[in-house]
Amino acid sequence: MNIFSFKKIVVYLFIVSTSLSISTANAQVIFDSSKTNQYQLVAEQIVSSALNEQKGYEYLKNLCRLGPRLSGSRNSLMAINWSKNKLKELGCDSVWLQPVMVPHWERGTTELAGIINSKKFNGVSLHISALGGSVGTPPEGIAANVIEIKSFDDLKQNKESVRGKIVFFSSAFNQSYTNTFKGYSESVQKRVYGAIEAAKYGAIGVVIRSVTTKYDTVPHTGTVQYVDSLIKIPAVALGNVDADFLSLALQEDPDLKLNLILDCKTLPDAKSFNVIGEIKGSEYPDKIIVVGGHIDSWDVGEGAHDDGAGCIQSIEVLDLFRRLNIQPKRTIRCVLFINEENGSLGSKEYSRFAENSEEYHLAAIESDRGGFTPRGFTIDTKSEGVLARVKSWLPVLQKAGIDWIRKGGSGPDIRRIKNTKALFGYVPDNQRYFDLHHSANDVYEEVHPRELELGSAAMAILAYLLSEEGLE
Amino acid sequence: MNIFSFKKIVVYLFIVSTSLSISTANAQVIFDSSKTNQYQLVAEQIVSSALNEQKGYEYLKNLCRLGPRLSGSRNSLMAINWSKNKLKELGCDSVWLQPVMVPHWERGTTELAGIINSKKFNGVSLHISALGGSVGTPPEGIAANVIEIKSFDDLKQNKESVRGKIVFFSSAFNQSYTNTFKGYSESVQKRVYGAIEAAKYGAIGVVIRSVTTKYDTVPHTGTVQYVDSLIKIPAVALGNVDADFLSLALQEDPDLKLNLILDCKTLPDAKSFNVIGEIKGSEYPDKIIVVGGHIDSWDVGEGAHDDGAGCIQSIEVLDLFRRLNIQPKRTIRCVLFINEENGSLGSKEYSRFAENSEEYHLAAIESDRGGFTPRGFTIDTKSEGVLARVKSWLPVLQKAGIDWIRKGGSGPDIRRIKNTKALFGYVPDNQRYFDLHHSANDVYEEVHPRELELGSAAMAILAYLLSEEGLE
Repeated sequence: MNIFSFKKIVVYLFIVSTSLSISTANAQVIFDSSKTNQYQLVAEQIVSSALNEQKGYEYLKNLCRLGPRLSGSRNSLMAINWSKNKLKELGCDSVWLQPVMVPHWERGTTELAGIINSKKFNGVSLHISALGGSVGTPPEGIAANVIEIKSFDDLKQNKESVRGKIVFFSSAFNQSYTNTFKGYSESVQKRVYGAIEAAKYGAIGVVIRSVTTKYDTVPHTGTVQYVDSLIKIPAVALGNVDADFLSLALQEDPDLKLNLILDCKTLPDAKSFNVIGEIKGSEYPDKIIVVGGHIDSWDVGEGAHDDGAGCIQSIEVLDLFRRLNIQPKRTIRCVLFINEENGSLGSKEYSRFAENSEEYHLAAIESDRGGFTPRGFTIDTKSEGVLARVKSWLPVLQKAGIDWIRKGGSGPDIRRIKNTKALFGYVPDNQRYFDLHHSANDVYEEVHPRELELGSAAMAILAYLLSEEGLE
Repeated sequence: MNIFSFKKIVVYLFIVSTSLSISTANAQVIFDSSKTNQYQLVAEQIVSSALNEQKGYEYLKNLCRLGPRLSGSRNSLMAINWSKNKLKELGCDSVWLQPVMVPHWERGTTELAGIINSKKFNGVSLHISALGGSVGTPPEGIAANVIEIKSFDDLKQNKESVRGKIVFFSSAFNQSYTNTFKGYSESVQKRVYGAIEAAKYGAIGVVIRSVTTKYDTVPHTGTVQYVDSLIKIPAVALGNVDADFLSLALQEDPDLKLNLILDCKTLPDAKSFNVIGEIKGSEYPDKIIVVGGHIDSWDVGEGAHDDGAGCIQSIEVLDLFRRLNIQPKRTIRCVLFINEENGSLGSKEYSRFAENSEEYHLAAIESDRGGFTPRGFTIDTKSEGVLARVKSWLPVLQKAGIDWIRKGGSGPDIRRIKNTKALFGYVPDNQRYFDLHHSANDVYEEVHPRELELGSAAMAILAYLLSEEGLE
C-alpha cells in the first residue's frame, strides 16, 4: 500500500470507528452511558500510555537479560528478586513473596548425540536438548541402534523390535489446524509420555522430533514424565532439520547407532517463591482481582514469550494504574507464579492461600500464551449472566485490539483458584508461538514491542472494568 | 504454558469449537444447512491444504529472490514474467498480460549525506534513502545548513529561516494508536508533501524522519510529490536512529551543514503490464470475481509484505482451487496490478478495461496490507442486504482465522472498479507492517509461512463463497 490511498485510509478509519460505535450501541451494554464514556476514555489513556511509553518492553529486556529461569535455579531467584523490586519501585501498596518448595532439575554441561557404527555417518553430531526432568546417562553415554516410530500405535505394533534400542519418535507437528494449540496438544504426547511408552518395551532411550512449527536445527525442550514402575530412560529432542536428517540416515544405514551422553540430574527440592504485589481497592479492598503469569521458564533461551511476556504484562497492569493515577475500587493483585513448567507448585500454593484467606477472589486474568498481538479473552464462568455482562464490555476492550470474548479455559496457573465469578485467559495470536516455545529461539528480540504492550493494555482495561463494575 | 495443561487445552478447544457452532446457529445464515456443511468442509480443506503444503510461501521466495520490483525496472518485468508463467503452470484457463505505460524512476548508485562544517561531526555519514521520484543533485551535491521542523505549521512559523537550507522534518510516527495505519496516515504527509511545502519558502532540500514504527538505522522510502509551479528539491529519508542523531547533532552544533549527493533520476515512461490469470466459472463465466495485489514494489528490500504477499495470496487462491479440484460457478480472476506505488496506472488501466468489457465484475478482493495473521475483511458496498449476507458467512471465514467483517474501504487497486456488488479489503494484523514497509527490512524472511498461508486461505474461502452464492 502506498499513500496515494491516504485519504481513503482516513475514510476507512472513520468508517471503522463509526461501525465500532454502532456495534457499541447495538450491544447489550450493561453500564450506563456516562460510565461508557468514562470507560472508553480510560481505555484510550491506557492504550496510548502503553504504546507510547513501551515501559513493559523495557522491563521485559531487564528480565530476559537475567537469563532463563528454571525452578530451583539461581537465575530464577534473581528473577524473583528483580520482580519484587520492580513491583516495589512502581509503588504497589504491598509486595511480598510466598514461599514454595520446587523441583530442581539441572541440564548439566554435556549434551551429545553422535552417530557411530556407520561408514557414512560416523562422527555426525546432532543438536539435542534433554527433555526437562530427563535422567542422565553414564559418563560414557549409552550407545544403541535406533528404531524410528511414528506413533504409540506404531510402537505397540513394533514392540518386539524395541528392546535395547533408542526409540526415535519422528512424526511432525500437524500444521493443518488454524489454531496451533490443537497441533501442539496432539504432538506433545510423545514428548510427555514417550519415555514411559518406550520403556514398557525395553527401550533404553528416547529421541523425539521437537514439538514445533519451525523448520530449523533448534531443539525444543519440555517436561518428560516417568512412572516408578518402569525404568527411567533418557529422553532428548531434535530440531526438525536434525530429525529429518536422522530419518534419512536411518533409511540409508539402519545399523547406525546413536551415542547419547547427558549429565542432567535432579537435585533435592529447592526453596522458591511466588511474587505478589497489589494496589488496594479504595472501596472493596478485600475483593481481589488477580492478574498473573509464571515467572519460571525452561532453561534454554530467555523465556521471553513463555512466560516473561505474561509476567511483564501483569506487572505493567499495576504500572499503568499508577502511571495514569487510576485508583481501583477493588484490589488489583499481580501474582507471578513459580514452577508452572514442571509441577505447578506455585499455582497450587497460591490457590491454597486463596482458599484459606479472608479475602474474596472475584476474578483472575492469566497471560501464558505468548506476547503476540491480542485476539480475545476466554472466560471460564458458570454464570450466563456474568458471560453476557463481560461480553457487553467488548467495545471498550476493542480499544486494545481485542476482537472477541468467548467461553473457554483460563490458564494453567489461575485455574485452581476457587469460587471466583470468572477466570479469564488472555488470548494473543498463536501462529508464531510454537516456533520458539521452550527453545533457544524464545528470546527478547522475538517479542514485538507494540504487540506486548497491547496485551498489557488489554489486561489493564479488563482489570479496570472488573474493579469498577465488579461481577457480583 | 507447559503441557500439564494439555487436557485443559483439549477442553478449551472443544468449548471454542462448540461456541463457534452456536454462533453459527445464532447468526442469520442465509444459505441453507446442507450448503453450510458443504461450505464448512471446503473451507477446512482450503485451510488444511494451505497450512500443510505452504506452496504460497515457496512461491513468495521465488518472487522475492528476483529482487525489488519498481515500475519500469528490469526486475519488475522479470517478476511479471515469473507471475505469468506461474499462473500458466497452475493450470489457469487463460493467462494474459495487459499493457500499461508506467513511470520509470531510478535511484542510481550514489546516495550520500555527510556532515561538514562542524568540528565535532565532520565526516559523519547518515544512512539515507532518496524518496521515490525525488530529483537528484548536481554531481558535487548540495551543501547547506539544516533547519529542524516539527510540522507544516512549524514550517510556516519559521518560513523566514528556511531559505537556502535543508529542511529536516523530524517528528516521529505517532505510536499511540492501536491501528498503525492511523499513525501512518498522519506521519506520511511530511513525506508526500514535505518537498512542496519546504520549496514554497526557498528550501533547497528535504530530509524526513522515516515513516516507521521501527527504531533502527534503516530509512523507509515512498513517493514524494512535486508541483510544477515550484522548484523540485531533493528529498531523502533517515531511519529513526539517524534522525535522533541528527537532531542531537543540531542541538550541539546548529552551524553544521549537510552535503547531500543523489544521482537518482526520472527516465521516460516504460512499457509494463498487469498480469491476469483466471479459472472460468462453470455456470456464469461472464461474472467475474477479482482477487489481486500489486506486483510492483519499492526498489529497496524485496517488497515481500508490500505487496509480494498480496500477489502470492491472489495467485494461491487459484492454486488452491486447482489443487483441491474446486470448480467455481463464477469466474475467479487473479489480477496483479503494476505501478501501485507511484501512479496506480495499472489500477486505472484495469478499471477502464472492466468498464468497457462485456463481463460483469461482481466483486473484488484485494490484499495490500502485508502478509500478517488474518483479522478480518472490510467491505465496500452500498447495499445493506449484501453487507448482511456477507456477514452471515463469518462462521465459514473463521476457519481461516477471520474474526470480523466490517464496512470499510477495499484497497488502492480495486477501488476504481465500478458497478460491483462489493469490494473487499483483506485485513491482516497491522502491528508490524510499518516496521518494514518501503524499506530494506521488507524481505522474505520477515513473512511468516502460516500467517501468509492463512491469508491465502481466507481469500480463497471468500472467493469460493462468492463464486457459489453470488451477490445478485
